Amino acid sequence: MLSIPMTPAEVRYRCRMGLLDRSTAGLALGYVQTNVVILPSTWAFEFLLFCQRNPKACPMLDVTDVGDPEPRQIAPGADLRTDLPRYQILQDGKWTEATDIRSIWREDLVGFLIGCSFSFENAMLNAGLPVRHIEVGRNVPMYRTHLTCVPTQRFSSPLVVSMRPLPHHQVVRAVEVTSRFQHAHGSPVQIGDPDSIGIQNLEAPDYGDPVPIYANEVPVFWACGVTTQTALLHANPEFAITHAPGHMFVSDLRDECLS
Amino acid sequence: MLSIPMTPAEVRYRCRMGLLDRSTAGLALGYVQTNVVILPSTWAFEFLLFCQRNPKACPMLDVTDVGDPEPRQIAPGADLRTDLPRYQILQDGKWTEATDIRSIWREDLVGFLIGCSFSFENAMLNAGLPVRHIEVGRNVPMYRTHLTCVPTQRFSSPLVVSMRPLPHHQVVRAVEVTSRFQHAHGSPVQIGDPDSIGIQNLEAPDYGDPVPIYANEVPVFWACGVTTQTALLHANPEFAITHAPGHMFVSDLRDECLS
Repeated sequence: MLSIPMTPAEVRYRCRMGLLDRSTAGLALGYVQTNVVILPSTWAFEFLLFCQRNPKACPMLDVTDVGDPEPRQIAPGADLRTDLPRYQILQDGKWTEATDIRSIWREDLVGFLIGCSFSFENAMLNAGLPVRHIEVGRNVPMYRTHLTCVPTQRFSSPLVVSMRPLPHHQVVRAVEVTSRFQHAHGSPVQIGDPDSIGIQNLEAPDYGDPVPIYANEVPVFWACGVTTQTALLHANPEFAITHAPGHMFVSDLRDECLS
Repeated sequence: MLSIPMTPAEVRYRCRMGLLDRSTAGLALGYVQTNVVILPSTWAFEFLLFCQRNPKACPMLDVTDVGDPEPRQIAPGADLRTDLPRYQILQDGKWTEATDIRSIWREDLVGFLIGCSFSFENAMLNAGLPVRHIEVGRNVPMYRTHLTCVPTQRFSSPLVVSMRPLPHHQVVRAVEVTSRFQHAHGSPVQIGDPDSIGIQNLEAPDYGDPVPIYANEVPVFWACGVTTQTALLHANPEFAITHAPGHMFVSDLRDECLS
């Protein structure tokens, strides 16, 4: 994916003007991009509780006040209704897509902004570690595991993980580098034994694309923000909005702020 | 304070039986003790949001399901209604004390368990660093600062800090040791310049007791869980229960789990 030098505010401005309809991968490198979930206030406590109980999969970076579309902690002045390139909307049991949600915004909505792995991938690259799916221009492979999240009454999910292959001699370094990013999934959840967490076939990920694993490489697994989406699907609220896959919110936080 | 070798479960059992009416300082050393706040569910989202926005002062370790008095993440089998030595109850604008809250428990209550500085103090002692108020047998000195927490609609508070004096040559080590405990207030918020955060007189703490600062020592300030209490007082809910000062909940988590 092409890296384009834009500030976070420029990315958000282009989204707002309808001038940016693409994945945010590679945009405003070095700044934190987030998953977004927007829910009615009647669901807000329980969703925040689910994320509090499962911080490795769902690291909460900001939560808006009820009815307020501005994520004031991580991007003052931004507007969650316009500043993402693309949204998914769940209404009456059906998902649709949109590039602007001003017309369906409600005074009872709460926005949740959740860390994503882009932050620690930048740190891995800076440390000279390979990030295979970036090398080969694919989406990261993701797998449902038989590990379960700590549920709430209505939210529950298997833990979904992403996988990055690493040469044997660089596995420890990868643990060190990603451990610092506690608010972007942090340290791996498993190293080298996919079977032990219920993954049978690395070539058939449940989400994203398979990537090659070379000789002397070990598959390493990290908790993944898609867990939030599967928990949301399970709870099946009457109304919800999320970012479209890969079309994240670009915040003013620098990646290093998550460490 | 006398250190008595008991397991966390033994401490909680004695509380439950009415056999322990004292501060929990020094009990079940090495295990995480927590601040406790119990609120009606109508206040739950906003209180959790306040803590999410101010994690250094209010590190959330566990939140119970609505109506459930069992903190299942950090002490399975425990009961928040009986397992603390002493409670404070806010009802109709008045505070009272109790040693058991079974008779006033309600199906709409949510329990919040928040990290406290006992965890990093143990780590400091293990690292050979002085913890003055323990040496002199007093409560830690705490001060309101002119730093402000990120508010929610109803919760707001100045940041309250605790102070521990350290010899010049051990300040960096103290930062290193406490930084690891992100879920127990973590790294200091200020080193050596009380005036810069609005503290005029170290000998007159707003809470707790003053402690001596020796020659060549520097006052070091950490975010303090009392911030949660001042935010609660400001919001003034119609009903709330907290632990009594120093009479904490003793969990099954080991201190090292917070690092």
